[in-house]
Amino acid sequence: MSAQSPEIATALISFTELVGLLQRIFVRHGTSPEVAAILAHNCASAERDGAHSHGVFRIPGYLSTLASGWVNGTAVPTVSDVASGFVRVDAGNGFAQPALAAARALLVSKARSAGIALLAIHNSHHFAALWPDVEPFAEEGLVALSVVNSMTCVVPHGADRPLFGTNPIAFAAPQADGAPIVFDLATSAIAHGDVQIAARKGERLPPGMGVDSLGQPTQDPKAILEGGALLPFGGHKGSALSMMVELLAAALTGGNFSFEFSWADHPGARTPWTGQLLIVIDPSKTAGQNFAERSHELVRQMHAAGLRRLPGDRRHRARAKSLETGIELPVQELNQLQEWAGD
Amino acid sequence: MSAQSPEIATALISFTELVGLLQRIFVRHGTSPEVAAILAHNCASAERDGAHSHGVFRIPGYLSTLASGWVNGTAVPTVSDVASGFVRVDAGNGFAQPALAAARALLVSKARSAGIALLAIHNSHHFAALWPDVEPFAEEGLVALSVVNSMTCVVPHGADRPLFGTNPIAFAAPQADGAPIVFDLATSAIAHGDVQIAARKGERLPPGMGVDSLGQPTQDPKAILEGGALLPFGGHKGSALSMMVELLAAALTGGNFSFEFSWADHPGARTPWTGQLLIVIDPSKTAGQNFAERSHELVRQMHAAGLRRLPGDRRHRARAKSLETGIELPVQELNQLQEWAGD
Repeated sequence: MSAQSPEIATALISFTELVGLLQRIFVRHGTSPEVAAILAHNCASAERDGAHSHGVFRIPGYLSTLASGWVNGTAVPTVSDVASGFVRVDAGNGFAQPALAAARALLVSKARSAGIALLAIHNSHHFAALWPDVEPFAEEGLVALSVVNSMTCVVPHGADRPLFGTNPIAFAAPQADGAPIVFDLATSAIAHGDVQIAARKGERLPPGMGVDSLGQPTQDPKAILEGGALLPFGGHKGSALSMMVELLAAALTGGNFSFEFSWADHPGARTPWTGQLLIVIDPSKTAGQNFAERSHELVRQMHAAGLRRLPGDRRHRARAKSLETGIELPVQELNQLQEWAGD
Repeated sequence: MSAQSPEIATALISFTELVGLLQRIFVRHGTSPEVAAILAHNCASAERDGAHSHGVFRIPGYLSTLASGWVNGTAVPTVSDVASGFVRVDAGNGFAQPALAAARALLVSKARSAGIALLAIHNSHHFAALWPDVEPFAEEGLVALSVVNSMTCVVPHGADRPLFGTNPIAFAAPQADGAPIVFDLATSAIAHGDVQIAARKGERLPPGMGVDSLGQPTQDPKAILEGGALLPFGGHKGSALSMMVELLAAALTGGNFSFEFSWADHPGARTPWTGQLLIVIDPSKTAGQNFAERSHELVRQMHAAGLRRLPGDRRHRARAKSLETGIELPVQELNQLQEWAGD
């Protein structure tokens, strides 16, 4: 999924520099410094980890949606302490990540005390990868699960037209002597960002990813983006999981279902206005067990069974390389970012 | 999935009668009356709902495993109140369903108070469908999620040999003006019981379900059962979810991973000795929202998108028919059950 090809001139930028650059872009386009810092770190982390579809590739979408007035870049989230294991945040029509940041300390404290705690975010926009929301919990010894619904673009298995969002599920668990075990999977057959990247590069998709505007199977990413739709992964099972994400991320939080909002009155709007659910578990509550050692044992056995690559491995390798040598970006892209930042 | 064909003589038995018959069988083969009542109700419910692979089809496996001494049919579960949202049960090498029953009231009370609660069952055997464990929570207005790992029979995506179990995920949510929304999906491409049923009926499987003893793709259910293995559903995504089930149902509960036990010393043993996790959420904690009405709206929209059958619909139709006319069983099967019951 590298965005580079040999003939494109590239430049290297450090993670810290990229965060600073993106932060200046966000502030210059209407977010508060607090929101800018969070989104910049999130977006730069994806780029650093080679998750290009959620890296700087997303910046034009962020700027377009901010300019449209669809999302409030200066929103201050309202955190409610609902019960001993339940936190609710009204993101104030802002981004979901600042809402999570505002509630995070309370959520962790509840998870450590109650053993499990839930964070229900609503009135929020999630335009990023989901793994950055769960991975930090695993880094402090907690198990985390998150789901977020998005916008109508997936045809439920057995239906005629799209209804669900790409509705990802992300999971993170600590591992002794290793990086946390982390995955982030769209319940669609392919992530929306990857379709956009394939369209931009003029590549065809594998079969089974989507349908065109007439509901016919297609491998053309443009046909999917222009009136077509995605399919769920794994047939009726992926479809059931996507339905579960709608129920947990929207019905349970008080957010919109993926089909309940319209961008029609906000040309340029790109961000789904929905909800997000996080569940955080403290595995130390299970007496006499060391969860991180057990998860390491599972990883050891997965390798012994012949698995060469575990979920997250590719990201961790890209991260190590980026931190060592810098993050590689096409010069043209970097220039564009600097222009947006007013540098 | 009907086990009947036109030339087989069938008989009708009421749900209550079937529960009583199965209960007598369990007691006669070494379980306590308490355990027998729970397993009989569970097994009869699956048969009533047309879920034949987890209905009376399972009885020979139960009797075989009880006779082998592998599972303790008279185990009394030990419930620990660990934290305000965390309950732990040692099933005492008994079945998982009595462990859930023993902890259920405490779990519900914690979920209603804390907003979310977790039940970690270990040292348990789960040989049944998973939806009966979650559906009752939805019937009292709660959202429930459960995962259980099983026995090594699924090759992780990208690996050479089996490691994971069929590792199902079950979910239930209340719905206004309708039955709860319930699904129960194996993270394997096909449930183990369905492979056994296909083998018994001499049917071939669809492609992509499993491999033979040499790791080669096969559509022969016998080749899968005799030294072969299943594949995960949905490639690397289903495989990631199966890994998550191992972590939640085993590492987090203190139960065995699917690869950590051996039946070698107990000929006739059939039940996986692992763990099970349940998460129960009280959606009423989300102020100003009526979850059941929102989930009904989602169902309404799914129908409007052309979906004719929702997860659980087939079971509910079979249930209605069974309760009206009785449960249809081949006469030979019914005679066999009566013989096992000593009637």
